[in-house]
Amino acid sequence: MAVQVTENTPTVALGPAAALSCRECGQRFALGPIFACQECFGPLEVAYDLPSGDPEGLRKQIEAGPDNIWRYAPLLPVPTDVADKPNLNPGFTKLVKADNLARELGVTGGLYVKDDSGNPTHSFKDRVVAIAVEAARAFGFTTLSCSSTGNLAGAVGAAARRAGFESCVFIPHDLEAGKVVMAAVYGGDLVGIEGNYDDVNRFCSELIGDPLGEGWGFVNVNLRPYYGEGSKTLAYEICEQLGWQLPDQIVIPIASGSQLTKIDKGLKELIALGLVEDKPYKIFGAQAEGCSPVSTAFKAGHDVVRPQKPDTIAKSLAIGNPADGPYVLDIARRTGGAVEDVNDEQVVDAIKLLARTEGIFAETAGGVTVGVTKKLIEDGVLDPSLTTVVLNTGDGLKTLDAVAPTSGPTATIRPNLDAFRAAGLAR
Amino acid sequence: MAVQVTENTPTVALGPAAALSCRECGQRFALGPIFACQECFGPLEVAYDLPSGDPEGLRKQIEAGPDNIWRYAPLLPVPTDVADKPNLNPGFTKLVKADNLARELGVTGGLYVKDDSGNPTHSFKDRVVAIAVEAARAFGFTTLSCSSTGNLAGAVGAAARRAGFESCVFIPHDLEAGKVVMAAVYGGDLVGIEGNYDDVNRFCSELIGDPLGEGWGFVNVNLRPYYGEGSKTLAYEICEQLGWQLPDQIVIPIASGSQLTKIDKGLKELIALGLVEDKPYKIFGAQAEGCSPVSTAFKAGHDVVRPQKPDTIAKSLAIGNPADGPYVLDIARRTGGAVEDVNDEQVVDAIKLLARTEGIFAETAGGVTVGVTKKLIEDGVLDPSLTTVVLNTGDGLKTLDAVAPTSGPTATIRPNLDAFRAAGLAR
Repeated sequence: MAVQVTENTPTVALGPAAALSCRECGQRFALGPIFACQECFGPLEVAYDLPSGDPEGLRKQIEAGPDNIWRYAPLLPVPTDVADKPNLNPGFTKLVKADNLARELGVTGGLYVKDDSGNPTHSFKDRVVAIAVEAARAFGFTTLSCSSTGNLAGAVGAAARRAGFESCVFIPHDLEAGKVVMAAVYGGDLVGIEGNYDDVNRFCSELIGDPLGEGWGFVNVNLRPYYGEGSKTLAYEICEQLGWQLPDQIVIPIASGSQLTKIDKGLKELIALGLVEDKPYKIFGAQAEGCSPVSTAFKAGHDVVRPQKPDTIAKSLAIGNPADGPYVLDIARRTGGAVEDVNDEQVVDAIKLLARTEGIFAETAGGVTVGVTKKLIEDGVLDPSLTTVVLNTGDGLKTLDAVAPTSGPTATIRPNLDAFRAAGLAR
Repeated sequence: MAVQVTENTPTVALGPAAALSCRECGQRFALGPIFACQECFGPLEVAYDLPSGDPEGLRKQIEAGPDNIWRYAPLLPVPTDVADKPNLNPGFTKLVKADNLARELGVTGGLYVKDDSGNPTHSFKDRVVAIAVEAARAFGFTTLSCSSTGNLAGAVGAAARRAGFESCVFIPHDLEAGKVVMAAVYGGDLVGIEGNYDDVNRFCSELIGDPLGEGWGFVNVNLRPYYGEGSKTLAYEICEQLGWQLPDQIVIPIASGSQLTKIDKGLKELIALGLVEDKPYKIFGAQAEGCSPVSTAFKAGHDVVRPQKPDTIAKSLAIGNPADGPYVLDIARRTGGAVEDVNDEQVVDAIKLLARTEGIFAETAGGVTVGVTKKLIEDGVLDPSLTTVVLNTGDGLKTLDAVAPTSGPTATIRPNLDAFRAAGLAR
């Protein structure tokens, strides 16, 4: 099915995207719904002909663009008129200067939280799905799909309806009721698979290879090379919101590891394009102890990642066999960063720390990054005198269970002043 | 405690806010933490010295401002340097062109959803609380408080911590667990009151009058005149996002009615300032049938609103004795609008309609406005050939229970293609 790129290869119009290229052997293929190299089975990623020569002009073009990821359309695999098409238009979420948190953690160089809970379905998934939607449109798919543990199913369901696609998404049959509601409410087909997430994934791969799956775009399988590029927009936004400057340090959660590698890719592009001044930056990866294959490999000095069986409250990060693990190790080592993990109790403490300092209620994944940031500072690994950005990729409303047992009323009283006085709550 | 305004009255610096004035008798008072007229007990609202004479300059100033409500600081009761203070910085949420929904409803003149679920704690309450925070700062309060049925408690808790206040908020003791978590997670004091929302309100009024309440700013009681002004920003944003034009029709939910009256106030200010061209607009109020005192009065042709005992799933609108009811009736009649209500089943249907057309998962209040819009079109009251804006003021994640019984998997299957085929889900 895959076509190697020659001079005469016809190609779909996805802006600056020129081809797919293998991350392992470099072989190039025409843009299409493929995800693995036909030569070496390595993962494919989008290769670009990026605009060059006029960084000031490009910067102005971006700043005059819409308040969402399409301001970066010249750097993304999307049609040039993408902003006019129906899409959830995620992105350009707040970069919160977290001075209260900085005081608690002893950070003096400037601490920022990139808060992706402000996206349409309240997680960074809206970014990656938005790009996959445009690829699906270009390839003529009519149904959007994915395997999911909940959040992605909702993001795909929402985006599909807005963009005019059918949708049919697959989840393990025993998900929490709340996540099922979120995935079902958009009205596309939702299929519970009797099995765990691995079974769901295997089933989806089977469906892609079968005529039954014709016309189906699986955002995180056959559209994965495009989908992944959505994470680059986090890098672009952070730098633009810092006044077109690279941060010194970024703390990024690791599930498959794709987000971290794409943020690194985005930063390198900004440097190559002259949009930011070149200077060293350090990338730190954050995992939950109960699913820490990359952090374990990092600490052991290994280049390969040994799979783990996940057991953590940070379910959106619970990928025991992260596809991009080795790339994450490369990036953490090359940039002078690190990969660290925190346990579930520390995750909960960190969610509450962020909530009570900055009024941001993070998903468990946000607890992981804030908790790891704290730990890295205490261990002297992260330099508190440098500008640091911590990612919150999701919303606390989706993982209420994590904090519910320890978040209740200070007191319950009868409605009168004596009762109030007796409760010791007077200031 | 209240000071009538004289030439020598010292005043706090809240930008263009000049005084508080009584909506009934017009008597003016110095800016302070008061909410009722000392002459006639009418509600107080903020009176302004608004900038005038250079609409083009003001429009440019606004457009160059931050991507949040502080771009409208010249029109709000906040210090001129408000954007530099720690605050959750809500607003400038998406105005979504809802072409899919328009097709379903037969709207040809342009249909838009103002989606306030994009605010920091995912409801429009962040707007009103943000203004109250700045008033509390100006008046030297150290503790922020409110009576709440859940959403406001979370908004106040979050904003207080970010802005550097203590907080102590009051809720009925028997709220749903999820709402308690959201209100507690920010770490301020949360007090359950043994009683219903009316009991909570009465207790708060008692506390304000007691020395125990000294230094306390209750956002929806003694800071209410400032708090309410936050809703004007919805009017400003809608018009700016329409290219500095008034919409022809706006559908607004009614709880206390304050939001609707302030949006009308905001539109009138934009006209007076020359920021938009003067033309007629119609304002429609939306209630749930189970709590429809204003809609009942409107249909009966009454000027007064008879209280009701609320019984609806739209709990964030369940105020049986809406303080601003008579003002709402005035505005709906003056502008040629209407007040209508829908039953709980219609609310659920409308939540799902919005989700499956635009990928927006609304709170029950959003189901009320979308449902009422549909009904008003069917009844020939709302003109589908005119530009129409519908407000979604909250997030579906906060009212999952409303749609849970009817939102589940299409099918549950074994992980193989035969099972998938048998389920009839192939395209």
